[in-house]
Amino acid sequence: MNDSIQAPSGQRGPQEHSIRHQIIEAAGEHFSHYGYGKTTVSDLAKAIGFSKAYIYKFFDSKQAIGEAICAQNLATMMAKVDHNVAGGSSATERLRRLFDTLTAATVEQFFEDRRLYDITAYSVAEKWPSSRDHDERLKALLEEIVRMGRESGEFERKTPIDELVRAILLAMQPFTNPLLLQYNLDLLPHGPREIVNLILRSLVP
Amino acid sequence: MNDSIQAPSGQRGPQEHSIRHQIIEAAGEHFSHYGYGKTTVSDLAKAIGFSKAYIYKFFDSKQAIGEAICAQNLATMMAKVDHNVAGGSSATERLRRLFDTLTAATVEQFFEDRRLYDITAYSVAEKWPSSRDHDERLKALLEEIVRMGRESGEFERKTPIDELVRAILLAMQPFTNPLLLQYNLDLLPHGPREIVNLILRSLVP
Repeated sequence: MNDSIQAPSGQRGPQEHSIRHQIIEAAGEHFSHYGYGKTTVSDLAKAIGFSKAYIYKFFDSKQAIGEAICAQNLATMMAKVDHNVAGGSSATERLRRLFDTLTAATVEQFFEDRRLYDITAYSVAEKWPSSRDHDERLKALLEEIVRMGRESGEFERKTPIDELVRAILLAMQPFTNPLLLQYNLDLLPHGPREIVNLILRSLVP
Repeated sequence: MNDSIQAPSGQRGPQEHSIRHQIIEAAGEHFSHYGYGKTTVSDLAKAIGFSKAYIYKFFDSKQAIGEAICAQNLATMMAKVDHNVAGGSSATERLRRLFDTLTAATVEQFFEDRRLYDITAYSVAEKWPSSRDHDERLKALLEEIVRMGRESGEFERKTPIDELVRAILLAMQPFTNPLLLQYNLDLLPHGPREIVNLILRSLVP
């Protein structure tokens, strides 16, 4: 797995600047109340009490601030996923835990922080770097689990691993992609479990 | 398979009335130009040259007209699906043809009649009866294919057929659901094919 953290795109100046964190926090609050789509950098500047020019010293656009929030949010989600997956004793168990945790985190965000969910959905629809980076991390984690299952004899070894990983992630989209989840809420909790069962049947050697 | 055609909801008066067809045709044209969301029944009445009251003799709301258009549209799609599926010599081939035809029809609509696609997406998001009816027909067709594959020995017989059919339809959502397809266009044509391959591996006896 690739653990390196890349500097989010659109950010300027030294990474470890406390003002940067202050802007991200305040923008997160503001987006939570007024929505990402409707807020401008001017609105944010007014709300935070900084000049627009000062905000532009750290972020080159509203999207750059949105991406920083998404990146933080996705990092928290991946930390939970990594933790839960690591506790699985077999590849089968790890695969189940991967999708249980991902679905639960997406659902939780939908119900508990709807505005944050909205930014995440936005980032997925617009294919922001934060979202593509998250996809890459997921792919790497799933590939690791499949390799483990192939070595232990739990999973088949014939299908090209790239194809297999792509297809599994696509099949889980209705519950792991925030854009799609909102239409499938009435299929929880059995929906994602039944797709995982299908995936595991497809992996039988 | 259930071939009965139910009277679309929200329609009034005798079914086989030529004025009804005239309204549906004209509304389809109007939605194509101005979009479903932005059009009111008053706009439609003006454009068609009927009074609003006269339109309400046949449909009790704008949604009822939209549903009639969607029902027509989905019936055309299902006729193609039924035709292509029937040409498959094995259950495996029929399953492939089912999803090839469905994906192709959804993609075609996206690129060739974007406004019609918009109404369909609307009907899926709002779970209109026309959309739920379509889901039921798809489910019945897929169940028929799975039963055929179980009888011929192509497919496994252990998994409850209801669960299996639900999971397969969910896994294909990224390409058969118009709301999701728009985000996955860059994964055509290999994306749907790879999910179908995964599904077929899961069905191995």
